[in-house]
Amino acid sequence: MSRFFSVISVTDAVKVAEKIAPLPGKETVPVEISAGRVLASDISADTDVPGFDRSVVDGYAVRSADTAGAGNSAPALIRCAGRVAMGKHDATLAVGNAGCAYIPTGGILPPGADAAVMIEYTEVAGDTVLLKKAASYGENIIRKDEDFQAGETVFLAGRRLSPQDTGVLAACGCMDVPVAKKPVVAIISTGNELVPGGVVPGPGQVRDANGPMLSSWLREYGCEPRLYGIVKDEREAFEAVIARAVSECDVVLLSGGSSKDDRDMTARVIADKGTVLVHGIALAPGKPTIIGTIDSKPVFGLPGHPASAFVVLIAIVRPLLDRMLGQTDPLINTVQATLSENIPSQRGREEYVRVKLRDGVATPLFGKSGLLNTLVRSHGLIRIPAGFEGLEKGSTVDVILW
Amino acid sequence: MSRFFSVISVTDAVKVAEKIAPLPGKETVPVEISAGRVLASDISADTDVPGFDRSVVDGYAVRSADTAGAGNSAPALIRCAGRVAMGKHDATLAVGNAGCAYIPTGGILPPGADAAVMIEYTEVAGDTVLLKKAASYGENIIRKDEDFQAGETVFLAGRRLSPQDTGVLAACGCMDVPVAKKPVVAIISTGNELVPGGVVPGPGQVRDANGPMLSSWLREYGCEPRLYGIVKDEREAFEAVIARAVSECDVVLLSGGSSKDDRDMTARVIADKGTVLVHGIALAPGKPTIIGTIDSKPVFGLPGHPASAFVVLIAIVRPLLDRMLGQTDPLINTVQATLSENIPSQRGREEYVRVKLRDGVATPLFGKSGLLNTLVRSHGLIRIPAGFEGLEKGSTVDVILW
Repeated sequence: MSRFFSVISVTDAVKVAEKIAPLPGKETVPVEISAGRVLASDISADTDVPGFDRSVVDGYAVRSADTAGAGNSAPALIRCAGRVAMGKHDATLAVGNAGCAYIPTGGILPPGADAAVMIEYTEVAGDTVLLKKAASYGENIIRKDEDFQAGETVFLAGRRLSPQDTGVLAACGCMDVPVAKKPVVAIISTGNELVPGGVVPGPGQVRDANGPMLSSWLREYGCEPRLYGIVKDEREAFEAVIARAVSECDVVLLSGGSSKDDRDMTARVIADKGTVLVHGIALAPGKPTIIGTIDSKPVFGLPGHPASAFVVLIAIVRPLLDRMLGQTDPLINTVQATLSENIPSQRGREEYVRVKLRDGVATPLFGKSGLLNTLVRSHGLIRIPAGFEGLEKGSTVDVILW
Repeated sequence: MSRFFSVISVTDAVKVAEKIAPLPGKETVPVEISAGRVLASDISADTDVPGFDRSVVDGYAVRSADTAGAGNSAPALIRCAGRVAMGKHDATLAVGNAGCAYIPTGGILPPGADAAVMIEYTEVAGDTVLLKKAASYGENIIRKDEDFQAGETVFLAGRRLSPQDTGVLAACGCMDVPVAKKPVVAIISTGNELVPGGVVPGPGQVRDANGPMLSSWLREYGCEPRLYGIVKDEREAFEAVIARAVSECDVVLLSGGSSKDDRDMTARVIADKGTVLVHGIALAPGKPTIIGTIDSKPVFGLPGHPASAFVVLIAIVRPLLDRMLGQTDPLINTVQATLSENIPSQRGREEYVRVKLRDGVATPLFGKSGLLNTLVRSHGLIRIPAGFEGLEKGSTVDVILW
């Protein structure tokens, strides 16, 4: 295994990752817990919404022509024909021929009515209503199919559902929502120096930060993470855990030991049991990344430093997950900010720099990539594309928020 | 119950909501599932992190003074004293007196060494290493407490934990994370016109969109929503459900029917069983909001229109939840954008306008507040404070993303 592996571009690495993505699975979930999931089919309304002409105010349903010219000094005097009850259709109630009807917000517009006058502009005198304002045709009402028409496509497959979307799904009669299955992702931490967080590290040992970090990020992104613990540099044990993870999960992430020996062992095992497709990406941090397959399942060897592992997760693993979820827009929050200083970069590799954000200004944090503290003291990442020699102070940058 | 209730400002309504917020409860959860939760205590590191001087490169651990003047044409020739093994401390291995040692990334720096030289700048000849680059003191290493010092406060209580934060918690030995308990929030949909999403609405009926929407939003915000279904305008049934919700939950949201009669019944029941504190807020949409308490539990009467209910959730209920979670920064994503046209507003009330976002430009959607489609066709909300008569085209606005 050569140390000076051949390095490919981020664009090509993403193509490889997308190509090995398993086809999205599909399941249905109740609408109440569908937010955050990705729609697996287009959704159309099963009826007109709202389904009937409705008032949007509390007031009087009228034929607009009957109110022409009405005002404070010359109200229209109209006989009250009755009251509209919420949620009920009263076939005997009709408006027009100088009749009107009390109507609550959301009430069904009685036959003959084409507008509503707000109660604030009315006064009742016996069975007559004084309307002190003219209503124009269609004023203060919603038409029966104004929100959605029966059969109209409301959402396209690939949409990540928001809380509001779930309300619209319910309104359109979609209570069992077809969504992409959550990709099941194995996380195996490797490295002789690693101990679990619950153990006090001895000399030369460090606690495994990548396991919890990767697992939390994957859960937030809509996956089902499975932690397989820490595996030391013993070939047999390592192979056994990988075999189990490959058989139980859709994707395997090996969160590498930081040393060359660990990375080499990871590459050797993938090569023996499957195929190494990529070994080295023109990405900083994140260069010593491995992409391969075992039994047609994607297997990634991520760098050991948490900051580097995180960048590879965002830049390389995420597009594969998007493909598995059938997601059309990546779930990444970016904000624009102004760069506080020049950032030099090496042309030919894509670079991610951690930044602090304050009042729309992004200040780079040039910490060593082995440090954890810059991960939590920064607010996000900016990306310098491979064709750039850096970014200039004062330029507008997109910050990928953590 | 007067229709023309007395209206208070958003600021005052938020103060009322915060004042009736129950004290935050506390529990511990495993670090792997702590992302998205709010820290209930300050967290400090239990040891120095990383805990020992470490190399950040694969290469040779050296005493920097031994490499002074080294370069391509005049390499320093240094005897190799051995290899550092990952995760192990070898007491016999020492560097200095013109000795060096192979060290992997993350390896423990042997006694005597104060820097590391990358392997790319070295060559091996027998038991001698040719170092073709001088190392300065401290180069390519991380000091034992450079990330965090034992006892140092790493996170403050009130922080909403990110995936990266969970990695840092594990590195600091915090595997059982003290977090705020999830507020348990009841959602009761009221209104004679409502039917569940699974039913095809008859004339005058509409499906309940608020139940799923509120429940999804609350779950994403870190609460535990409980749906109590739809209650019709029958006083006894209504009182029974409210009593059950008050006894089982921390907060009760009544997602109101849209009519005045429904709102009045809600206010009457809260007044009879507890106290109405606010009835009407200078907020558009969202004016007919009720805030009260029953048995010291906060009870909100939200407007029936989904768009209005959502604005009240963001503007009024959220600050109460933040208080219950002990959260210091609200969990709201905002981006800055340029307004595409003038928006008039009525001075004296706070107004929220739905906007579409494209290439940094926010375009208002002036739909009727009873429509659902503007909720899903827009990308967020802009807030016009009560003291403004509107916002001007071209001004920079904060968009609260859905």
